[in-house]
Amino acid sequence: MAMMNLKRAATSAIRAFPAAGSSTGALARHLHGSAGESKKIVGVFYKANEYAEKNPNFLGCAENALGIRSWLESQGHQYIVTDDKDGPNSELEKHIPDLHVLISTPFHPAYVTAERIKKAKNLQLLLTAGIGSDHIDLPAAAAAGLTVAEVTGSNVVSVAEDELMRILILMRNFLPGYHQVINGEWDVAGIAYRAYDLEGKTIGTVGCGRIGKLLLQRLKPFGCNLLYHDRLKIEPELESQIGAKFEEDLDAMLPKCDVVVINTPLTEKTKGMFDKDRISKMKKGVLIVNNARGAIMDTQAVVDGCSSGQIGGYSGDVWYPQPAPKDHPWRYMPNQAMTPHISGTTIDAQLRYAAGVKDMLDRYFKGEDFPAQNYIVKEGQLASQYK
Amino acid sequence: MAMMNLKRAATSAIRAFPAAGSSTGALARHLHGSAGESKKIVGVFYKANEYAEKNPNFLGCAENALGIRSWLESQGHQYIVTDDKDGPNSELEKHIPDLHVLISTPFHPAYVTAERIKKAKNLQLLLTAGIGSDHIDLPAAAAAGLTVAEVTGSNVVSVAEDELMRILILMRNFLPGYHQVINGEWDVAGIAYRAYDLEGKTIGTVGCGRIGKLLLQRLKPFGCNLLYHDRLKIEPELESQIGAKFEEDLDAMLPKCDVVVINTPLTEKTKGMFDKDRISKMKKGVLIVNNARGAIMDTQAVVDGCSSGQIGGYSGDVWYPQPAPKDHPWRYMPNQAMTPHISGTTIDAQLRYAAGVKDMLDRYFKGEDFPAQNYIVKEGQLASQYK
Repeated sequence: MAMMNLKRAATSAIRAFPAAGSSTGALARHLHGSAGESKKIVGVFYKANEYAEKNPNFLGCAENALGIRSWLESQGHQYIVTDDKDGPNSELEKHIPDLHVLISTPFHPAYVTAERIKKAKNLQLLLTAGIGSDHIDLPAAAAAGLTVAEVTGSNVVSVAEDELMRILILMRNFLPGYHQVINGEWDVAGIAYRAYDLEGKTIGTVGCGRIGKLLLQRLKPFGCNLLYHDRLKIEPELESQIGAKFEEDLDAMLPKCDVVVINTPLTEKTKGMFDKDRISKMKKGVLIVNNARGAIMDTQAVVDGCSSGQIGGYSGDVWYPQPAPKDHPWRYMPNQAMTPHISGTTIDAQLRYAAGVKDMLDRYFKGEDFPAQNYIVKEGQLASQYK
Repeated sequence: MAMMNLKRAATSAIRAFPAAGSSTGALARHLHGSAGESKKIVGVFYKANEYAEKNPNFLGCAENALGIRSWLESQGHQYIVTDDKDGPNSELEKHIPDLHVLISTPFHPAYVTAERIKKAKNLQLLLTAGIGSDHIDLPAAAAAGLTVAEVTGSNVVSVAEDELMRILILMRNFLPGYHQVINGEWDVAGIAYRAYDLEGKTIGTVGCGRIGKLLLQRLKPFGCNLLYHDRLKIEPELESQIGAKFEEDLDAMLPKCDVVVINTPLTEKTKGMFDKDRISKMKKGVLIVNNARGAIMDTQAVVDGCSSGQIGGYSGDVWYPQPAPKDHPWRYMPNQAMTPHISGTTIDAQLRYAAGVKDMLDRYFKGEDFPAQNYIVKEGQLASQYK
C-alpha cells in the first residue's frame, strides 16, 4: 500500500515535497499539503434549473455549487461544476485527466471507476458532499493512494427523520388516502382496512450506526418494541435510555419485526442481502424502509414481495442505479412510497455538507488532516466500516 | 333544564321508573337504567364493501358494525346498521322516530340536528364511536335531556402519530418526490429546494389537550422549539419533561411558528378562527396541520394562502362538510397533503372504540354511569370543553 502511495505521489505533478523517505503519514500530509498551488477542482451536482434561484440556501445544486466558487477562485483555484457525468463524452470525462479534486454527491453520483482513477493522473482527493462513497471503486482508490472523505454526520439527522416519516406513511397507509383526495374520491374503508398505529409495533433496524441510533431515539416516545442488529452493541447507557434490544442474529430478528429499517452501508457483504429467501422468512405484510442503498435489496424480490403481499409496503429514497430509469419496476409496484434520492439533501443538510466540504478543502490547501471520522480511504486503507 | 329532562322522560315510553320526584342525577340514571328492556340501537358507519372481509379486526365499518351484533341480539336488542344517513329518505331517517340509541362516528358523521332530535321521541343516548360530537346539535341534545358520550382517549395516540407524520411530510416535501416516482421522473432539485429538516424548527400547537400533549412528547427528540397555546398551562412536570413553552396569547405565538398544528375542538369560538386576517399574520410559508375539524379554517382563506405561498403546505384529514364533495377546493390547491377523515380510525383505534362503545352500552343496559371523561352532555349540561 505504501508503494502505491509512492507511485501516486511520483506520478503527481502537483505535490509540494518529494515523497521519498517520508513516512506514510507524512506522505498523506504531503498529498494534502500544497499550500499556494492552484488546483483544478471538479464538482458534480444535480442541476436545479428554475429551482436554483428559488431559495438562497439551495447550495447543493450545480448552479449554486456549494456556495464556494468565489472563495475558491479568490485563492487562484479552478472550479468546474457540471451535472454531466456519464459516458465518454460527458463533461466530467473531459476533466478526468487533469483534475486534482472531485466533489460528488450520492444524490447524483459521479461513478468513479477503476478506469477513471487510472486516467486521472493528477487526482488526489475524492470528496463526497454528503455521506457515502459506493459510487467510488474504493479498493482502486486505495490502491492508487487517493484520499476519499465524506462529511460524516452531515445527513444523519435528515435521514433519521426521513425514515421515521416513511415508517408512519406505510404504517398509517397515507398514500391511498392522498390518492382519493386528488382523484375526487372519499372511501375511508379503502384506507382504514390496512391502516395501523405505530404504537405497540415491533421495529427493527438492520445496522445501528449514527442514523440508526437517531432513529431509535425518535421512535422512543411512540411506545414500540425496538430491536437492532449490528456487529456490536451500542453504548449501554444509550441502549437503556432508548430501551432497544440488541439482536446478534439478523435472521432471528427479522421474523419478529412489523417494520424493518435498513441502516447499513452497501458493501460486498450487504449487496443483495434482502433476496427472495430472506424476504420470505420475514413476517407476512412486513413494512420495509430503506434509505441506505438500493443495491442492498434484490430489485425483483422486492417487486415480487410487494405484489404478493409478503411485503406490506416499501419506502425509501435509494435505487440502483441512480437516477432510476423510467422503467425501474419499483416505480410501479403496489404499496410503494418511494421518492428520488432526497433524504440527505434537505436545505439544512446542504448547509452542513457545503460547510463540511469547504472545511476539508481549506485543510487540504493548508496541508492539514481532516476530522478523523470523515475519512473513507486514508493512506491506502479503507475505514473499518467499509471493510 | 330539569324541566326539559322531565319532558323527555315523560314522552319516552321506555323509562323504567317514573321520573317525577327524582333528582336530576337520579333521572339521568333512570334514563340509562332500564335493565332487561329491548332497545332499538342504530349504528351509522362507513361502508367497506370489498374491504370488509380483508381484515378480521376491521370493526369500524357498517358490515362489521363494531363486532357487537351477536352480543346485542343475544340480549334481545334490535341493532340496525347503515351508512345511509342524509336526507329525508335515508335509512337513518326511517329509524329516527323510534330509536333509543344512535351510534355514529366522526369519519362518516350522522348529523343529529335539532329537528331530528325533536322527531326522535324515544332517543336517550347518542354515542360517538371515536371522539367528537360536532355532528350533533349539542344545545338541542342537552335541552332534550339526552346523554351524549364518546370513547374519550380512543383516538388520541392515532391522531398524534398522524399529525407528526403530516408535519414530516410537509417539512420534508415528500409528495413532489413521490409524484416524480410514479410519473417516471427524477429531479432531485425540484424537491430539495423546499425540503427541510424538522430539527431546529418552531412548532406550535393551538390547543394542548391529550392529543396535543402526545404530539409534543413525540416531537421532543426531534430537537425543535416547542410552543403551545391553551386556556391553561399543562402540568409543570410534563411541561419541563417535554420542554414546551406556554403561550398565553395565540396571536403572539403564531408568527413565531414554522409549523402550526390545530388541536382544539370545533366550537362557536373556534369556527373559522383561521381566516384571511389571521393567516396573513403568520410566518410566510408556514406549514399547517389540522386533524381537528375542517370548519376551524376559513376554507377559501386556506386555498388563497396555499396559492400565494403564504401557507407553505397544508395537511389534515378533516373537511367541511364530510365526505368532502368532489369539487372541494382543498383537493386541488397547491402543496396540500390531505386525506379523507382517517387518522382516528386505524385498526388499533377501531379495536379501542368498539370496546369503548360496548362498555358504555353494557353500562347503559345495567343503569350504570359511564367513565366520567366520556360524557359530552350529561344531565342537560355540556362538558366544560364544549362550553
